[in-house]
Amino acid sequence: MRLTILGCYSATPRTFTNPTSQVLEIRNHIFLIDCGEGTQVQLRKNKIKFSRIKHIFISHLHGDHFFGLPGLVSTFRLLGRESELHIYGPKGIKEAITLLLKLGDSWTNYPLIFHELSSKETELVFEDDKVSVRTIPLEHRVYTNGFLFKEKPASKKLNVEAVAKYKVDKSQFNNIKNGKNGVSKDGTAILNKELTLEPPPPKSYAFCSDTVYKESILPIITDVDTLYHESTFLETESHLCKKTKHSTAKQAAEIAKKANANHLILGHYSTRYKSIELFKEEAMQVFPNVVLAEDGKCFEL
Amino acid sequence: MRLTILGCYSATPRTFTNPTSQVLEIRNHIFLIDCGEGTQVQLRKNKIKFSRIKHIFISHLHGDHFFGLPGLVSTFRLLGRESELHIYGPKGIKEAITLLLKLGDSWTNYPLIFHELSSKETELVFEDDKVSVRTIPLEHRVYTNGFLFKEKPASKKLNVEAVAKYKVDKSQFNNIKNGKNGVSKDGTAILNKELTLEPPPPKSYAFCSDTVYKESILPIITDVDTLYHESTFLETESHLCKKTKHSTAKQAAEIAKKANANHLILGHYSTRYKSIELFKEEAMQVFPNVVLAEDGKCFEL
Repeated sequence: MRLTILGCYSATPRTFTNPTSQVLEIRNHIFLIDCGEGTQVQLRKNKIKFSRIKHIFISHLHGDHFFGLPGLVSTFRLLGRESELHIYGPKGIKEAITLLLKLGDSWTNYPLIFHELSSKETELVFEDDKVSVRTIPLEHRVYTNGFLFKEKPASKKLNVEAVAKYKVDKSQFNNIKNGKNGVSKDGTAILNKELTLEPPPPKSYAFCSDTVYKESILPIITDVDTLYHESTFLETESHLCKKTKHSTAKQAAEIAKKANANHLILGHYSTRYKSIELFKEEAMQVFPNVVLAEDGKCFEL
Repeated sequence: MRLTILGCYSATPRTFTNPTSQVLEIRNHIFLIDCGEGTQVQLRKNKIKFSRIKHIFISHLHGDHFFGLPGLVSTFRLLGRESELHIYGPKGIKEAITLLLKLGDSWTNYPLIFHELSSKETELVFEDDKVSVRTIPLEHRVYTNGFLFKEKPASKKLNVEAVAKYKVDKSQFNNIKNGKNGVSKDGTAILNKELTLEPPPPKSYAFCSDTVYKESILPIITDVDTLYHESTFLETESHLCKKTKHSTAKQAAEIAKKANANHLILGHYSTRYKSIELFKEEAMQVFPNVVLAEDGKCFEL
């Protein structure tokens, strides 16, 4: 699982910083998470193949998370895309994108499928045999969801040395990987656990931006491997959190600690601060494994 | 009069090129012309003060001329703008921007005034005592206008040496600049032309993007000082002009020649060509004074 930060600053695009967008590579999927203005240029800079993006998850309809989407949808068309594009986001996203395409008389020549969200409870929005994605209802000035990306347990791996030792015929290999016992060349039954190795444990990633401090998300994200949680402010500006419905670095760390996460990634920094290191310092007073999102940074999770 | 090219390439934003946007500084106005995605970052890079932009002219509602506008309108709000912003563009532009603001619950705290255009005839869209702006109806895949920016004749300038020589009292200076005759200290009438210098001739700039070759615009832009005319293609790809409703560099030059323009600026290059110098070479076979738009380039007109 690999996470590429395309942009991680709040509010407005600037010369050297970009609004929120991330790419999550997980079991052969390339998921785009949020799409602030300039995302398509950031995708190019980070050498992400446009054609591999088939699912886009939008947390909420503020410009710094969403205004890059119309351009990206149009660019897909100009590049001759034919495969389906699925967009998951708040109710209203379909009307907005459809209106902009209509005004430009620029209908897509590929299937554009909207999955509009309006539930205040967590819901499963995507699932295949390898990955599931569910919403994390957040609390912001407008309807907002985070997203929890979870790998499914992989098949067991064949223990190559054991099958050689017991002379198990390869016609049995698929059954063994699916949990069945085996039979040796001389007809002896061999227990599955002797012939297999456990796969690496499935991983998970929770994306939480933008939101106030909200403990009710804990049951959804408990034991998550990596939590991205917004930290727009430091505690010195905590009075701004109530009005703007954002969190401090310390609050992000509290959520990571209470969720028993392994790692915390901070981002969505207000540009009022001179150094983003201050966010890390504040969060580490509560939770040890803190890293800072930075535009163009890549995390192997 | 100064023109700054923020972006001049067609279709999609790329790592080092931007879609159409220009800033025209004319008699203390700062007019923004078109607003492709990334325009606000280009404004910052080129050190244009956001607060000085009070009028934005949008030629048509294709993404590469328009998708930077929602973000710019939002950024103005975040920067605490209070003064009016006037947006001139095709019918539908108000619905689009209003919907995006509504979805983000992000109403502007400054007056946002739309001037929606739908006429197929040229019309005056802005006028004050120094400048006028009128539309240039173009022909593209969607409803499109160019814009003609014209300075009004300035007041005459006082001939400082002459008023000193004739000992004309300074209480008469304003009247003289407005064309009245003067009176010397000894009571002799002095003709206005003896006391004044002619102001520099008023200048004009025509912005024409995107369009097919269209001679019917000639009466509107005849004798223009500087013509910006799109040149998406070279003549080798002229067969694409009919379908996409664009022009070649040669066609842009034909328009400049027939309009008796002083200078031609080319832009809106398709990214299929290795060098934009090819556009200049092609156009100069028809019209001598050709310059190439380039992102970040500044022209003193």
